[in-house]
Amino acid sequence: MKGSSWKGKHILTACQFSRADVDSVFALASDIKANRDKYMDVCKGMLSCNIFYEPSTRTDSSFEAAMKLLGGQVISLKGMANSSVAKGETLEDTVRTLEEYSDVLVLRHPEVGAAKRAAKVLKNPILNAGDGAGEHPTQAMLDLYTIQAEFGRIDGLTITIVGDLKFGRTVHSLVRMLALFKVAQLNLVSPEYLQIPDKYLAEVKKSGISVTQTSSLESVLASSDVLYVTRVQKERLDAKAKAQLASGVSPFHVTADLLARCKAKASLRILHPLPRVDELDAAIDSDPRAAYFRQMKYGLYVRMALLALVLGVASPPSPPKSKL
Amino acid sequence: MKGSSWKGKHILTACQFSRADVDSVFALASDIKANRDKYMDVCKGMLSCNIFYEPSTRTDSSFEAAMKLLGGQVISLKGMANSSVAKGETLEDTVRTLEEYSDVLVLRHPEVGAAKRAAKVLKNPILNAGDGAGEHPTQAMLDLYTIQAEFGRIDGLTITIVGDLKFGRTVHSLVRMLALFKVAQLNLVSPEYLQIPDKYLAEVKKSGISVTQTSSLESVLASSDVLYVTRVQKERLDAKAKAQLASGVSPFHVTADLLARCKAKASLRILHPLPRVDELDAAIDSDPRAAYFRQMKYGLYVRMALLALVLGVASPPSPPKSKL
Amino acid sequence: MKGSSWKGKHILTACQFSRADVDSVFALASDIKANRDKYMDVCKGMLSCNIFYEPSTRTDSSFEAAMKLLGGQVISLKGMANSSVAKGETLEDTVRTLEEYSDVLVLRHPEVGAAKRAAKVLKNPILNAGDGAGEHPTQAMLDLYTIQAEFGRIDGLTITIVGDLKFGRTVHSLVRMLALFKVAQLNLVSPEYLQIPDKYLAEVKKSGISVTQTSSLESVLASSDVLYVTRVQKERLDAKAKAQLASGVSPFHVTADLLARCKAKASLRILHPLPRVDELDAAIDSDPRAAYFRQMKYGLYVRMALLALVLGVASPPSPPKSKL
Repeated sequence: MKGSSWKGKHILTACQFSRADVDSVFALASDIKANRDKYMDVCKGMLSCNIFYEPSTRTDSSFEAAMKLLGGQVISLKGMANSSVAKGETLEDTVRTLEEYSDVLVLRHPEVGAAKRAAKVLKNPILNAGDGAGEHPTQAMLDLYTIQAEFGRIDGLTITIVGDLKFGRTVHSLVRMLALFKVAQLNLVSPEYLQIPDKYLAEVKKSGISVTQTSSLESVLASSDVLYVTRVQKERLDAKAKAQLASGVSPFHVTADLLARCKAKASLRILHPLPRVDELDAAIDSDPRAAYFRQMKYGLYVRMALLALVLGVASPPSPPKSKL
Repeated sequence: MKGSSWKGKHILTACQFSRADVDSVFALASDIKANRDKYMDVCKGMLSCNIFYEPSTRTDSSFEAAMKLLGGQVISLKGMANSSVAKGETLEDTVRTLEEYSDVLVLRHPEVGAAKRAAKVLKNPILNAGDGAGEHPTQAMLDLYTIQAEFGRIDGLTITIVGDLKFGRTVHSLVRMLALFKVAQLNLVSPEYLQIPDKYLAEVKKSGISVTQTSSLESVLASSDVLYVTRVQKERLDAKAKAQLASGVSPFHVTADLLARCKAKASLRILHPLPRVDELDAAIDSDPRAAYFRQMKYGLYVRMALLALVLGVASPPSPPKSKL
Repeated sequence: MKGSSWKGKHILTACQFSRADVDSVFALASDIKANRDKYMDVCKGMLSCNIFYEPSTRTDSSFEAAMKLLGGQVISLKGMANSSVAKGETLEDTVRTLEEYSDVLVLRHPEVGAAKRAAKVLKNPILNAGDGAGEHPTQAMLDLYTIQAEFGRIDGLTITIVGDLKFGRTVHSLVRMLALFKVAQLNLVSPEYLQIPDKYLAEVKKSGISVTQTSSLESVLASSDVLYVTRVQKERLDAKAKAQLASGVSPFHVTADLLARCKAKASLRILHPLPRVDELDAAIDSDPRAAYFRQMKYGLYVRMALLALVLGVASPPSPPKSKL
């Protein structure tokens, strides 16, 4: 998408973006980060309706903060089970009603494809904030922007993703978007029962990235530039995975000791979409390599950029300098 | 009420308005619709406390959007059962506390007369956003404004209301306010067990409007200018009505086929307060005669107008040109 | 704390304030009260994250209104049980995440010491809005400011606190802060099983204030300048206290008749943190001595002052004129 072509666009899936699109979002996010005051009123008089059928502290708060920091207003609908939905209203009717009050919608819904269904009946843009086991495109975008902001580039890096690669939609969207970059090496670390679905593996391999699947984090940690840790999605596991995870603990525990023992680089950056449970030790938080709280802030800028783009109130500040 | 006499007034019941009042609200709503920017900051520095003891997606969101689009701020209190009420606080104490923080209150409450009770102890204006089986005056106002905005007038039209005329408070308030206009013909269509209570029927007849009660939508559809469809209020039905509705389906189904078969006018406008269940087919949504999503937007303007009036930050733009 | 030293400070406990600190907050609160417009935009572009693990109508609304009336924005997180916490997130992770989106945090939490724990991991200031049976420092501050605003002073007054002095955290913080003033006489009125814990009694006595403990409100009402009434905290009572309160009614009932019979002063001011149940008769509400709804408004100004101070956007208007 070029220049003004963002205006009115839905953000539905990680697949919809070209490399140039991503570079545009990153360029705008960086400009917002550097010049907060410039964007403080760009959404004045505009309203976002944020509809969360599923609870989500950080995605919800992040989108709400993003709109408000652009000078816009937000109507936040949570716990939709207690509302018109209980009176039998369809998703389509709910979003068509709410778009009459607002300029943009943000939707989190438990069903795969919900955002796409909603988009079909809408005049205003909608941003998919997670649809069940489906997509969570702004999360993938912010994960990548964190790497971009910390390293100045994504191309050429060795990226290791560890944890639940089967049920975590975050990982699926991330892997899809990594395929847009010239990543040097992608390591996918999980026990066998939590391996990434073949569909996503095939996609990333097709893009030409060198991929290693392993259950040994130790074997790939030393060479990693980025360590992306994920939580086991206990609420999404199937019966088989639950049985194999019967111990109740995560298959991996990233600790300060592990980083030292495996000679992790000083320039390593550790990411995590949060919330975390026991897969990532809190003692690492004060290590400069821990980038996961900064990641939350980068996410705010990415969401501000996306909202400003689809609302047509800002454009990428200059032709993005692609390294391609 | 004239000019500045709106300032500080409570909005409690559909009965409180004269024809001139309604014309004033409509004139201001239309001016807001045409000149959004002019009203963008009129409530800057003001706060509305929106207190919803009962859930309500659209009324709640609409009032919240209205205040925010006037440049005001909103504190939204939902699910009051989990709050001070659980500690035994009276409605009176809750509203007196919240008015200390704010400039205007909006109240949805399950008990008939709640808004009136609250108004008795308040210095600031309160808007009744629905009190149980009682009143919902801003809904009636927006229903009428939808007709006004779509036809340019209400006088002289044939209006047909179909569905649950017994338990739907929306219908009761609407019928009361219709009595202010020179409606050509009012058709009230329902099965016998969902007929409008005698009290409201008597009121509208007394105003001189020609009223027909029937259970046959087919018999009156062709001559209708407005078809106002309502949902059966399953959550409010009494035991007798529940038994008669045992089939679980609405007594009426408005479909594209029905409109064609009954030769509905091309200029017909279909309204519905939403949410709908099965009484109004979604296939009609794309028909220009379907006005129910536009109705949501008109409602926003009506609520903006009412808030601006009782807060004293705007007045009707000119002497309303009544057709009387 | 002097001048700019407030910026970035946490507000955790009533014990952290010197007399000069309290005078500074009161001076700023009074300036805000007198010059609302001057402070209307001081927090423009700033965000407060208000995190309420426990429900609280008035504290929550008051903090939200305070930030919004300073021109700031608020993200309000309620019912945290349904969120990331359910996925096993620690309080520390939640607040570190939310501070990335915001400039200041407000926390209500059921565990004693929660705000202090949170403060340890934060860069931005946090305001304790109540931590279980622990502290509620802004409530004590607003109670004192109410007295200051109604009498023009606190020094030299006779203050009577009646009700549940054992489980009410409000009373504990208030008594601690009263120790900063030259109160003429402090009367603590409760049945024996609801007496103030020795710890707090010792503290206030050490400050040199004359304290009387009694179970007879009648004996001290005539000489009182301030009557601070509290609700029995039924939700916090221990088994023994519950048994002794088996009648289900409050041990005290302040009524118009009681005030007359005991010859309460015309200049008496009655305070109550609200919500109330049966300990304070609603018939008193219209008596000018009833200051408890005004107390809510004073609380708003105190919270505006505290937010403005820790955000560094305002300073006390002049060297506070202490009577010491």
